[in-house]
Amino acid sequence: MAQVLSGKEISGDVRARVARDVHCFKEQYGIVPGLCVVQVGGRPDSTSYIKMKAKAAAEVGFHFVHEHHPEEITEGELLNLLHKLNNDTRIHGIIVQLPLPGHISESAITDAVDPAKDVDGFHSINVGQLTRKAQKGQRRAFVPCTPKGCLELILRSGVEISGANAVVLGRSTIVGMPMQNLLIQNNATVTVCHSRTRNLAEVCKTADILVAAVGRAQMVKGDWLKPGCIVIDVGINAIDDPTKKSGKRLVGDVDYAECAKVAGAITPVPGGVGPMTVAMLMDNTLEAAKQSMELQYGPWQLRPLRLNPLPTVPSDIEVAMAQTPKYAEQLAKEIGILPSELELYGKYKAKINLSILDRLANRPNGRYVCVAGINPTPLGEGKSTTTAGLAQALGAHVNRNTFACVRQPSQGPTFGIKGGAAGGGYAQVIPMDEFNLHLTGDIHAITAANNLLAAAIDARNFHETTQKDDALYKRLVPAKKGIRSFAPIMQRRLQRLGITKEHPDDLTEEEIRRFARLDIDPETITWNRVLDTNDRYLRKITIGQGPDEKGITRETQFDITVASEIMAVLALAQDREDMKQRFSKMVVASSRDGTPVTCDDLGVTGALTVLMKDAIQPNLMQTLEGTPVLVHAGPFANIAHGNSSIVADKVALKLVGKDGFVVTEAGFGADIGMEKFMNIKCRYSGLVPNCVVLVATVRALKMHGGGPAVTAGKPLADEYLNENVDLVRKGFANLEKQIENVRMFGVPCVVAINQFATDTQAEMDAVRELSLQAGATDAVVSNHWAHGGKGAVDLAEAVIKACDSSNPADFKFLYDVNMSVTDKIRTIAQKVYGADDIVLEEKAQKDIERYERMGFGNLPICMAKTHLSLSADPNAKGRPTGFTVPIREVKGSIGAGFLYPLVGTMRTMPGLPTRPCFYDVDLDENGRVIGLF
Amino acid sequence: MAQVLSGKEISGDVRARVARDVHCFKEQYGIVPGLCVVQVGGRPDSTSYIKMKAKAAAEVGFHFVHEHHPEEITEGELLNLLHKLNNDTRIHGIIVQLPLPGHISESAITDAVDPAKDVDGFHSINVGQLTRKAQKGQRRAFVPCTPKGCLELILRSGVEISGANAVVLGRSTIVGMPMQNLLIQNNATVTVCHSRTRNLAEVCKTADILVAAVGRAQMVKGDWLKPGCIVIDVGINAIDDPTKKSGKRLVGDVDYAECAKVAGAITPVPGGVGPMTVAMLMDNTLEAAKQSMELQYGPWQLRPLRLNPLPTVPSDIEVAMAQTPKYAEQLAKEIGILPSELELYGKYKAKINLSILDRLANRPNGRYVCVAGINPTPLGEGKSTTTAGLAQALGAHVNRNTFACVRQPSQGPTFGIKGGAAGGGYAQVIPMDEFNLHLTGDIHAITAANNLLAAAIDARNFHETTQKDDALYKRLVPAKKGIRSFAPIMQRRLQRLGITKEHPDDLTEEEIRRFARLDIDPETITWNRVLDTNDRYLRKITIGQGPDEKGITRETQFDITVASEIMAVLALAQDREDMKQRFSKMVVASSRDGTPVTCDDLGVTGALTVLMKDAIQPNLMQTLEGTPVLVHAGPFANIAHGNSSIVADKVALKLVGKDGFVVTEAGFGADIGMEKFMNIKCRYSGLVPNCVVLVATVRALKMHGGGPAVTAGKPLADEYLNENVDLVRKGFANLEKQIENVRMFGVPCVVAINQFATDTQAEMDAVRELSLQAGATDAVVSNHWAHGGKGAVDLAEAVIKACDSSNPADFKFLYDVNMSVTDKIRTIAQKVYGADDIVLEEKAQKDIERYERMGFGNLPICMAKTHLSLSADPNAKGRPTGFTVPIREVKGSIGAGFLYPLVGTMRTMPGLPTRPCFYDVDLDENGRVIGLF
Repeated sequence: MAQVLSGKEISGDVRARVARDVHCFKEQYGIVPGLCVVQVGGRPDSTSYIKMKAKAAAEVGFHFVHEHHPEEITEGELLNLLHKLNNDTRIHGIIVQLPLPGHISESAITDAVDPAKDVDGFHSINVGQLTRKAQKGQRRAFVPCTPKGCLELILRSGVEISGANAVVLGRSTIVGMPMQNLLIQNNATVTVCHSRTRNLAEVCKTADILVAAVGRAQMVKGDWLKPGCIVIDVGINAIDDPTKKSGKRLVGDVDYAECAKVAGAITPVPGGVGPMTVAMLMDNTLEAAKQSMELQYGPWQLRPLRLNPLPTVPSDIEVAMAQTPKYAEQLAKEIGILPSELELYGKYKAKINLSILDRLANRPNGRYVCVAGINPTPLGEGKSTTTAGLAQALGAHVNRNTFACVRQPSQGPTFGIKGGAAGGGYAQVIPMDEFNLHLTGDIHAITAANNLLAAAIDARNFHETTQKDDALYKRLVPAKKGIRSFAPIMQRRLQRLGITKEHPDDLTEEEIRRFARLDIDPETITWNRVLDTNDRYLRKITIGQGPDEKGITRETQFDITVASEIMAVLALAQDREDMKQRFSKMVVASSRDGTPVTCDDLGVTGALTVLMKDAIQPNLMQTLEGTPVLVHAGPFANIAHGNSSIVADKVALKLVGKDGFVVTEAGFGADIGMEKFMNIKCRYSGLVPNCVVLVATVRALKMHGGGPAVTAGKPLADEYLNENVDLVRKGFANLEKQIENVRMFGVPCVVAINQFATDTQAEMDAVRELSLQAGATDAVVSNHWAHGGKGAVDLAEAVIKACDSSNPADFKFLYDVNMSVTDKIRTIAQKVYGADDIVLEEKAQKDIERYERMGFGNLPICMAKTHLSLSADPNAKGRPTGFTVPIREVKGSIGAGFLYPLVGTMRTMPGLPTRPCFYDVDLDENGRVIGLF
Repeated sequence: MAQVLSGKEISGDVRARVARDVHCFKEQYGIVPGLCVVQVGGRPDSTSYIKMKAKAAAEVGFHFVHEHHPEEITEGELLNLLHKLNNDTRIHGIIVQLPLPGHISESAITDAVDPAKDVDGFHSINVGQLTRKAQKGQRRAFVPCTPKGCLELILRSGVEISGANAVVLGRSTIVGMPMQNLLIQNNATVTVCHSRTRNLAEVCKTADILVAAVGRAQMVKGDWLKPGCIVIDVGINAIDDPTKKSGKRLVGDVDYAECAKVAGAITPVPGGVGPMTVAMLMDNTLEAAKQSMELQYGPWQLRPLRLNPLPTVPSDIEVAMAQTPKYAEQLAKEIGILPSELELYGKYKAKINLSILDRLANRPNGRYVCVAGINPTPLGEGKSTTTAGLAQALGAHVNRNTFACVRQPSQGPTFGIKGGAAGGGYAQVIPMDEFNLHLTGDIHAITAANNLLAAAIDARNFHETTQKDDALYKRLVPAKKGIRSFAPIMQRRLQRLGITKEHPDDLTEEEIRRFARLDIDPETITWNRVLDTNDRYLRKITIGQGPDEKGITRETQFDITVASEIMAVLALAQDREDMKQRFSKMVVASSRDGTPVTCDDLGVTGALTVLMKDAIQPNLMQTLEGTPVLVHAGPFANIAHGNSSIVADKVALKLVGKDGFVVTEAGFGADIGMEKFMNIKCRYSGLVPNCVVLVATVRALKMHGGGPAVTAGKPLADEYLNENVDLVRKGFANLEKQIENVRMFGVPCVVAINQFATDTQAEMDAVRELSLQAGATDAVVSNHWAHGGKGAVDLAEAVIKACDSSNPADFKFLYDVNMSVTDKIRTIAQKVYGADDIVLEEKAQKDIERYERMGFGNLPICMAKTHLSLSADPNAKGRPTGFTVPIREVKGSIGAGFLYPLVGTMRTMPGLPTRPCFYDVDLDENGRVIGLF
């Protein structure tokens, strides 16, 4: 008698192995593999199959979902459901139980399942890939469960498949065809038979291995078999059997009684192939979950873009336009962003949904690198260029998962005097025209949100001025179908006022007055309107001069949009909810009795949150070499902290993972940009930088050393074009102080000497020697501008070393927020700028008292000081000493979460020159932007 | 001796057939099928194969492209190339010549070819689909050329394949495996043999059909064959042959001399399978081109979304949020938009590239339907709702290709008093929150463009005032590396000034003055700044009060963004180039000597075009039933023409094709919205409407008949809730006049009675009876608000009939543009409003004289009149008579292309009430918008 191949037993082994692996999987990733079965209609056979699958899934420890839908579901609705399941990160395997009702195309549906979740192996792509050898780097195709189970049974029988003659009865897409593929892959000589085959018995007789899958009860007889052959019986047919209670019993396609006598091994029905199918479904699902984790947590499959730098570097826009960027969809796939987490904006930009932070919550962060610089000179240092170049080197040459996180530039100045902030030469963010124009509309959203709040302030003031308490109240809380009620945002105001009543009719006259009147003192309104346009005529204006406004005019101003507190909030918010909370706390004015009036008091918090709901999602772009970049937020560095957003850094740190790098830039000199990066941004984010890169150029150091002034349009002085080591050494004082500033925070410092063609070896050597003396971990020459990432490989290696040597425990803030405001300002001035002391003007003193009285004294400090010098005097180069820092006044961005002392006047609206750049900007005949820098 | 199956001869037949079909194809579609072969590196065998393919392609009449790239091309670059080819509408078939160099994954590359262009049949999807039966509506998979050729040879041999024994030698993915699939599909019993097969000769002996594809010279011997069998020899092997000049000769896998004696039919080598492969490539390419045309020109494969209307219709946002929209990508695919023509903005919005107009240039337009209404009352008529409902009926119920084209609403009012413009009830555009918020940023782009021009005006004025001629000129035309040159936009100004000099140094002092000084008279500046915010405090302001502006202040105002002339240009432009031309002509002020000063004079035309380059692309959204909608442009109906864009209508008319429908809406009453639609929009577009739908409600007609006033918040008067046929008949006068207005243009008119629950049959019958009497083609009750498209099926049928009966030759404009301005205004007032005459105030007279003097007298007229009455008095309901229309002043939107006479004061900046809607707007805990209407 033949060996009985017990599917029950073998499938038990398989399921036990899967269960063990699931256990390890859970340990490793903190999540459970998920399987979803989609059922349409109520066929009893389908229902009973699904029950078996559900039971097996529960036993191996899967998350199991049964999506059961009525017969009437449309094809479109079913496709939508599959879209949802494809995007559901808790589901790793999806099967659609067949057959489907006649009005639904089965092939359209099976082809709509994500091939990576198609654990039935029915998607055309999986079917197609099954017939091919898998290639390097390719996802392994899913093998349909029944043939996979049959193969397992054949292997367990011990037969040598290679060279054996195999006969497959049946040519179904689910069993017969994939079965013969598997047998051929295992080197059997395979014959496929079907209803049109002549001499079926004769063909079967040649088989060393016979797989029967035709659905005809007991068709294969004993005398069809070659003695000793292996018989796998896929059929499940109900035949009459009066001895059974149901009157039926199940048999296979093989006459078991006869064949068991001839065959060497045979599967029983039931208990043969059936249980194997379910076990293999479990196996495939686990495999799908593992593949998904590899994709999410493994090293990126990044395909860098090739650069072919020209010996003479063309203009930035020419370099940028000569490169063809990857589609954002492709880039996202390469770095493990799921389609559901991506919102495309055109072909080359996309927003990333913050839900990605939940998915990757358990993943360790990568290394966090801040790029800062010496105090800027008109010669330029190249911080943005270094940020891009370093990211290109790390991502495309040293092959580390790397993100650059940079600010979105303001559109206004793009058409005024200066260029963009996309880097330069062969180290840029692309497409650079989109980077410098609307991008995905975040700044436009800020304009809309900021100005809605501004309009609300003046409108409220007008309505309060022109209405009595009762009328005002009745309009604020109107009756709908006779009933008045408070909006939730009004309930919050009542709470702040200490009024605990719930019904509008219950308030006393006094309470009505307090609730309905914000009583804004127009003189105290600090909230300005904004535009992302360089419009000098809006620097000081008078509004409300129309006849309808009844003479209630007011002097005010427009700022450039990036100066809006909403931009500062966007940059510092942890998530959408935190953004909303910060909006609610924004102080726009004081009431006549000195109480701060907030955005929430005006009822606009929710509307601002809605206007900013997309803007909070960071924008994915890429460098010239196809490495990923997040562009997000760009607070005006003059009066805010000038750093890109916290959420972008968080998303990037998760996406690069443990061994990856996130390179971000702090605007202005390190005394301003990096100081705020540490004391404000890192304080709010809780993130600790592993390394600071300080960018300097030989030329700029010469100017700090006393080199002559530089005038636009005139040729450079000889000092800058010829070797002058002495001048470099003198000017190093500025870099020295900035290195000390970095070390003060307990973070390693790498100096990047951004090379120019005129720099001599002796000059660069001097910078390196002095930097190491001053405490830098390393000082490296970098020429990414001319060579792209390849030119910054040394810098990248130095940064990796510095990060490896860093200890997050060494990190410390410069001051405790609970110190007095004056002490905090003094600490920054003395320690970071090297000042003797600060001098508080009377206005500043009063401001500080007011903010401390209102309870805002414990906010961090955001200095509004010239970036051109360590001191308050823009002309004092090098490392000035013996100076004081005058504080003219102190303002607050309470929602964003900082006070900003003003050292001198800060302009918040740029103007247009006589010949603005817009004269050159146009589209060429192919619709491409020209003349942008 | 065996019959010789001459591939040369048979392939000749195939190619001749293809050539004939290509001829017909060209006739039918006006384009040529295109085949592209991608070659990497320079293998001589590949080069010679490609030569053969190129020759064959030329012979059958294909457009053939040989993309030849060096060995060093990266995988990423090759993928990018395939992306480009996939998106190239001139290429229908793509093959990548294999093998590829080792650093490139062949499977990644073959799977990157669009399956619909994969004429080699190597994409996993095509491979997978080959193993399955094709299902209804599924694209036919491409069969690899060699096995397809083999099958053709077998069929030509006359053998009966069904039931025959076939043996395939070789299991390659290119020949062996697809060959066996084809044979099994043709009902052969197939055995696949390979290097591991034992007793090869014995297996071959069973074959009625033998296909040899192993690459071993003359392996199959005569005694391996069953006498009379069919032998197909795929092998091409070079063996030594001293008798040949080359010392080599080509033989197959079959020993031809021996086998020809035994077989019944046999293919020679060469001249057997080889030529068939090339012929089948031609066949597949033609097939690909045909499939592509079917997709582009055939009926849509639209999957409507199911609606389940509730008996009590919930709020608009609740209805909208309860529906799950289709992904924009899916919708685009269903209606024949190519991926390259689509730019996604998130999941549910996309922009359509205007290149689609080139691709579909030869396709006939669909029917063009304009939805207009009676003069609005506070009771609402539901034009937007009818537009959406009619589109739902036509597209999802009557199954005609249908687009709705609607305006983008202004975001400002969304947070003020009123709701959006997405329709209502079960006839809406979704997602309605995105529709009413930023959408894709078009309005933000207008704000930016408008205000850049405004800033440029004041900055130029300032710089001219504070600089002498020479300094001003030198700054405008600065020396770069010692050389001054004019920007192209400056050359255009020089041309307008009649200065023909090319070099800045050649201008005389007088010419310098004329060129450099726009000499703007500040009093004449008509260009206002804009914001998309309801901000009443900006209705009249004084700007330039900052100390740097040296006392050069000016009174001006902000308008709501949609009132910008740039919006009007966007709506009337034919394409991007036309938009730019219109921008250049926009007049912003006059010089002190009365010359118009244009955008081009200020040098901003190119910059505005760049800012608006994405905005010119219409936005794809959908109705609640998943039918497509284009949302594009929304000029302020008070002072502009209030119609959505021409480009959107053009794109939609091409996409729906001959039997399809485009339904668009004209704002306000038909006397304003439709009159401007006809006389301005259709005049510029050259499009002719096939039908106007006039929307009316029983309630609104009652008000026109003298029903009592309606006050918000108070219960409706009895007249509106109970039957009052008399009042309806009286009020019908308004509808009667509007029907006459429609007929005046020679267009059929269908009246849509937008049903309310309180309407009685007698009332509706009265409207119908009177409408038919007044000349309407039909009058139909519609209840799409409560039932969606299903409720508007009768209306849809009536519209189809009216369109069928329409004759474009009957269409006529109301006036000739070459009439005097006064006569044009009078014509509109008398014929459309029914006025006795117009009364020109003095200012208006002067304005008209000025515009006629400047050469703008031949522009069409855009009346700025109240929309609440046919007359100038908003309180005069019904059909007023015996009135005159006073014209206060006349303004011009010269770039957009119309003059607009002001009848009374038109407000261009709304305000916020005491309790604006923003109090209710917020995100819920799932991040979904709540409180929006």
